[in-house]
Amino acid sequence: MNIFLDKTGSSPLYRQIHNQIRDMILSGELPTGYRLPPERRLAESLGIARTTVINAYEELKSEGLVDARVGRGTVVSPLTRPIPDAEEGRSISWPHYFRDEGLRPPDPLVRNLLESASQPGVISFAIGLPSPTDLPLSLYEAASRAVLSEIGPLALLHAPTEGHMPFRETISRWLTKRGIICTPEEIIIVSGSQQGLHLSTRVFLNPGDTVVIEAPTYFGAMEAFRRAGARLLAIPADDDGMQVDILASLLRHHRPKLIYVQPSFQNPSGAVLSADRRQHLLRLAARYGIPILEDDTYAELRYEGAPLPSLKELDQAGLVMTLGTFSKILFPGLRLGWLAAPRQVIRQFALAKQIEDLHAGTPGQMVIERMIRNGDLDAHIATMRSVYRTQRDRMIAALDRHAVDGMTWHRPDGGFYVWCGLPRTVDRTRLNDRAAEERVSFLPSYPCFTDQPPVTHLRLNFSYPGIEQLEEGITRLTRAIRSSLTSREQVPERAQSATAPLV
Amino acid sequence: MNIFLDKTGSSPLYRQIHNQIRDMILSGELPTGYRLPPERRLAESLGIARTTVINAYEELKSEGLVDARVGRGTVVSPLTRPIPDAEEGRSISWPHYFRDEGLRPPDPLVRNLLESASQPGVISFAIGLPSPTDLPLSLYEAASRAVLSEIGPLALLHAPTEGHMPFRETISRWLTKRGIICTPEEIIIVSGSQQGLHLSTRVFLNPGDTVVIEAPTYFGAMEAFRRAGARLLAIPADDDGMQVDILASLLRHHRPKLIYVQPSFQNPSGAVLSADRRQHLLRLAARYGIPILEDDTYAELRYEGAPLPSLKELDQAGLVMTLGTFSKILFPGLRLGWLAAPRQVIRQFALAKQIEDLHAGTPGQMVIERMIRNGDLDAHIATMRSVYRTQRDRMIAALDRHAVDGMTWHRPDGGFYVWCGLPRTVDRTRLNDRAAEERVSFLPSYPCFTDQPPVTHLRLNFSYPGIEQLEEGITRLTRAIRSSLTSREQVPERAQSATAPLV
Repeated sequence: MNIFLDKTGSSPLYRQIHNQIRDMILSGELPTGYRLPPERRLAESLGIARTTVINAYEELKSEGLVDARVGRGTVVSPLTRPIPDAEEGRSISWPHYFRDEGLRPPDPLVRNLLESASQPGVISFAIGLPSPTDLPLSLYEAASRAVLSEIGPLALLHAPTEGHMPFRETISRWLTKRGIICTPEEIIIVSGSQQGLHLSTRVFLNPGDTVVIEAPTYFGAMEAFRRAGARLLAIPADDDGMQVDILASLLRHHRPKLIYVQPSFQNPSGAVLSADRRQHLLRLAARYGIPILEDDTYAELRYEGAPLPSLKELDQAGLVMTLGTFSKILFPGLRLGWLAAPRQVIRQFALAKQIEDLHAGTPGQMVIERMIRNGDLDAHIATMRSVYRTQRDRMIAALDRHAVDGMTWHRPDGGFYVWCGLPRTVDRTRLNDRAAEERVSFLPSYPCFTDQPPVTHLRLNFSYPGIEQLEEGITRLTRAIRSSLTSREQVPERAQSATAPLV
Repeated sequence: MNIFLDKTGSSPLYRQIHNQIRDMILSGELPTGYRLPPERRLAESLGIARTTVINAYEELKSEGLVDARVGRGTVVSPLTRPIPDAEEGRSISWPHYFRDEGLRPPDPLVRNLLESASQPGVISFAIGLPSPTDLPLSLYEAASRAVLSEIGPLALLHAPTEGHMPFRETISRWLTKRGIICTPEEIIIVSGSQQGLHLSTRVFLNPGDTVVIEAPTYFGAMEAFRRAGARLLAIPADDDGMQVDILASLLRHHRPKLIYVQPSFQNPSGAVLSADRRQHLLRLAARYGIPILEDDTYAELRYEGAPLPSLKELDQAGLVMTLGTFSKILFPGLRLGWLAAPRQVIRQFALAKQIEDLHAGTPGQMVIERMIRNGDLDAHIATMRSVYRTQRDRMIAALDRHAVDGMTWHRPDGGFYVWCGLPRTVDRTRLNDRAAEERVSFLPSYPCFTDQPPVTHLRLNFSYPGIEQLEEGITRLTRAIRSSLTSREQVPERAQSATAPLV
């Protein structure tokens, strides 16, 4: 359920919410029995007061469109007349045609936050993008020009489903330098790492299969696994990453189909899986015969110390598939990532991908191929390590100066995020209101868990805001936190609404 | 099952085939009970003599890897020892982990033909690409430069899942000029029309649902529907397109979930659905409440007469979704297409797409947006109409001059293809051999049918080869046909091997 508010005051907010939900009910998008989000949750996600949502729901109730009962929440009532197509005034009821009555929208909070982050004047710690002012546009332009003049029309025609072969060769050499030994044939180019996650579900998962994830983990991965009908076995993580001994004990009773893990600078926690746990995880996977999908998204963005070997490098059993992306180190808009895996797996991914979109964009592959080959990418990564290290330090320093008692954080050795624990006495609804007033945004922790998180955290991104915004943003945020404190402990945050069975 | 032959003579062909199939069996890619393609079919698809394939199969039999029985064909035998990973020498058997034992490769013929088409010296009538020498590279470069300088870093960051809003607005205005009235919110940008076809299966189809298609139809659409487990209800088409009266009679017993149709310059036949049949089809769809997916891929490429209104333009019931692409009129390598449909449908496509690849590439959207807005695209289409009209006429003239008795064809009013009927006495295996010797390629008709085609056709593309190659290519082709004639009628071509139930 996506609600978009125009906060310029053209129409009262409760009226905007009421109208949009009414349209969704009349159009059949929200079917009979659909449970509206709890008032507090919707208020949080929209960054508005709870009373506004209560007023909107009361209107819907008075129109007979929804019904509220204690313990059941607010649910859509049966319609007593044929469903018109509210948008078109036409006769067809589309939801009747959709598979399984249509896909349910994911929790609107994430989308609403991302949209609020792009409002003018807002300092956004919410989104995981590279620094826009440091994107190497001129290198992109130079590489594009060179590709077009050297390759000509082929740069705008089809590429093989597995990817442009010179790109696969260049990535293979580039990965070899990092200790990931794979041939070009063991690489497939995907249209962004999200597609890699999605295709992994097409290749491996039947509905009901179990996937091991970390808690917390990347919410886009959870969405992909859930959409495939997977059960999620969430293993708690600490500062050294997934607690592999807990996984070991659970494997006595569960037979997961896949283990999904971000060993380096995890999203959202920034944790690095320790060397011991890497070995332990690989031993478990080999013993029980479980493939590992290693998400390498942030591995290049290391600001301290020496890198640990990737799971793929350590793997003796041939069980590790590694997924990478150019979205954090170059250009997310090109939608380009890669999967390194045994050839049989690559073939399955290619068969799935061919039906779905034929291949990833050709000119982008050729441009990045050139930027890797001529050293532009490695030079850019070196530059950005220094830029992001400074930005991280600036955020940490600001936290040191302005933090409220009870807040916790670590300085991450890499990646894009500070994972910041809140005092237990923060009223989160009030915090959302205050943060909106202060024009600062963040990602709350609950979309990153299948279940109640033990402590409420905020994921604070330091790569996207300008260096000059970091201290001001933390000042605003801590002011919002301070004015959201209450005299008693608050109830834990709820996890994301389940769209699939959770383990 | 994909087999790649090195015809330079480094190793005997039968040995190459044997080795590759053996590897696929030992690696588990071809599971126990998998039926190998009939010898004649494999020979056709590889463009080699049937005896070569027979020799390869004999080798496999002698090793106990396959078993042949009359009436059952040649099937993979049970392995009597654990399956090793033949490629890696490692311990994991990947197919055991794949969903449903892994995706089956589609018929190799299409892929083999496309690959043979790119061999040096081959004149290819096989593939449906725009003329490479006429791609407007300088307009692309100019638009790219303008986009980067005006929009800056945002051109390489994320776009919304539904697409870059100015692109949707510009497409909406552009479609309005063609009589397709839709708002920007009624458009979603897809990563090529293949993704539009695939997403339609995610939105609409449960396994076992029936989809109406034309016979013949676009094989990529059939693959997408089959992969979704759909049953295909194939309606014969003639020179006026789908025989809608046949569909009418079948709707008494079938309740299809979706009708897929290419009303204009259909792939492969080039037919145009007549005005009367358009109205009849819309009446049927409205009466039975069946959504229509109108594939508009070739609609702009009209070389004669006035355009007929699209189904979307004629639609009174709100049942038509129209799918278009920039792959034929601009750059297939950018992977950009669009779907125009009611907002509820767009929302479902967006929910499916978001999980699968977030969004289509950003810079490509901005570049084409600009090329539409500044008139470059319309000017290019006008130019290409003239180029392709000339190429079509050259191919038709060459057919007039060189054709063999019994060949049939029409001059298509638009699109990319001449649909050319063969004399019934052609030995198709011999034709494949001769065509390979003559270095000319084509698409045979059977991948375009679910069932035995009534007459064997070749789909001859006239857009991709250079104008100077058209007469020479037809000369080679007709020479190959002439030398493949036999004294008696041949058995009809077999339809594509079924990977899903066919109706």
